[in-house]
Amino acid sequence: MTYQLSHELTQCQQRVNDFLATQLTQYDNFNSPLIDAMSYAVLLGGKRVRPFLIYTTGKMLGVPLEQLDHSAGAMEAIHAYSLVHDDLPAMDNDTLRRGKPTCHIAFDEATAILAGDALQTFAFELLSQDTTISEKQKILQIQLLANSSGAKGMCLGQSLDLLSENKSVSLSELELIHRNKTGALILASVLMGFNLSKYVNDQQIKQHLTHYAQAIGLAFQVQDDILDVIGQSEKIGKTVGADQVLNKSTYPKLLGLDGARQKAEDLYQAALLSLAQLPFDTTALAELASFIVKRES
Amino acid sequence: MTYQLSHELTQCQQRVNDFLATQLTQYDNFNSPLIDAMSYAVLLGGKRVRPFLIYTTGKMLGVPLEQLDHSAGAMEAIHAYSLVHDDLPAMDNDTLRRGKPTCHIAFDEATAILAGDALQTFAFELLSQDTTISEKQKILQIQLLANSSGAKGMCLGQSLDLLSENKSVSLSELELIHRNKTGALILASVLMGFNLSKYVNDQQIKQHLTHYAQAIGLAFQVQDDILDVIGQSEKIGKTVGADQVLNKSTYPKLLGLDGARQKAEDLYQAALLSLAQLPFDTTALAELASFIVKRES
Repeated sequence: MTYQLSHELTQCQQRVNDFLATQLTQYDNFNSPLIDAMSYAVLLGGKRVRPFLIYTTGKMLGVPLEQLDHSAGAMEAIHAYSLVHDDLPAMDNDTLRRGKPTCHIAFDEATAILAGDALQTFAFELLSQDTTISEKQKILQIQLLANSSGAKGMCLGQSLDLLSENKSVSLSELELIHRNKTGALILASVLMGFNLSKYVNDQQIKQHLTHYAQAIGLAFQVQDDILDVIGQSEKIGKTVGADQVLNKSTYPKLLGLDGARQKAEDLYQAALLSLAQLPFDTTALAELASFIVKRES
Repeated sequence: MTYQLSHELTQCQQRVNDFLATQLTQYDNFNSPLIDAMSYAVLLGGKRVRPFLIYTTGKMLGVPLEQLDHSAGAMEAIHAYSLVHDDLPAMDNDTLRRGKPTCHIAFDEATAILAGDALQTFAFELLSQDTTISEKQKILQIQLLANSSGAKGMCLGQSLDLLSENKSVSLSELELIHRNKTGALILASVLMGFNLSKYVNDQQIKQHLTHYAQAIGLAFQVQDDILDVIGQSEKIGKTVGADQVLNKSTYPKLLGLDGARQKAEDLYQAALLSLAQLPFDTTALAELASFIVKRES
């Protein structure tokens, strides 16, 4: 990771964490563990790639950072809820996430289910309460987040992923899974930044950004699969080899390790090509693409 | 139940079911069980009390029914998601709901978690896609639904309810639980109908409707507790005595069976009194209040 990207990622982590922590103070636990579990899930760790994409795309297109906070916070709340539920015993049954006990281990299963549910609601609450943008813009963001995270996007991807366990799937089926499971939110992040800019009706800019986001979204998953094979548990903060245990189809399994690495490289080049079509300073988005395929955790 | 109420409840069930079924056709399963589980959870059975309150309040205040469909559908989707998650083994561990196997029994636990998640998203998707109302109205409905169902409302109530198991709680703690767990959505239903009317800025009408909704919301829960003690399993469609098994605090436990019945009657009278302040034909809302405290299932 370049010094510049590392600096900007840290700044963005800080910004979205501060925003989320402040927003969560409006809730009262009434002695229940609900808000603590929500905070635990959404505030502890995480690269904040999705908020970074929202802030960076928005900034590149001239949107003031203040107008991006609610979108970034909402996106991260959706991502956090999906991780909490994904880690549950009935799903991936993971005990370690970002190097820490998963939510249902740190609290209990019922609290984790409820905290995930309430984090999803929190996301839509945040967007509906944003006073820095117009009502039309709010609806645009809510539609985008709902479309990309529900039964047409992330949840569909999760369902397809569960179905693929212990089955051999084709490369196109694997891409359908990941385009929904992780790709949909990555794309939505870039488009949330775009939606709030003055270019919102420019279909060409939207198309180039879409291609960029689709490429890095898939590359992210390919690299995740690679790291599950070759990574070190202490670096990636979760159990290595988990895909193999669940007998999941992965890119290294379908393409071989070298084939998967080539796939990640191809997607990286495709992402750069899309950025090259844009008349803006795309340095930060390009560096993120590089980080995604070269990261070791 | 009067013939008239029975007729109107059936009409409303039909209307919201048709609407939800049509809306769900926009989704594709891609061979996963996700949409089937969502449809199973949201379409099979249920009294549709919340949609009834939305339609009836709206109609009473002059709102065309078409403008209430998305709100009614969204509310029922939220209610359905909460039942699916509430029935999970880690929560209430119920196998029977509305006389049928619960979602995680009919499908599996992972699918039930995901279907619940996606039903919540579906609710906000529906509201954001409503083309019959203004953007300002959409935001109003989204804020209301999010506020009442999340960590300030229903989810908080669920969390407090779990916490109260095997503990003795006071009457005021029990009311805090139910005001959030079930009361928040009942109140939101009445206010969703109100929000779309020309009286939206009339604080007096809002206050009377709020008092009515709070009274019937609590009465609903008191009667639920009574039925859990004296009801017949085949009538109420779920396991009788479940509260006792989970060692939950209930109104009959705190007030005795007669005390609980008196409490329900007092709340019913309070609801009628609030309706009497309104310069509209409140017959349908009054009949619903009567049904809530007199129902046997």
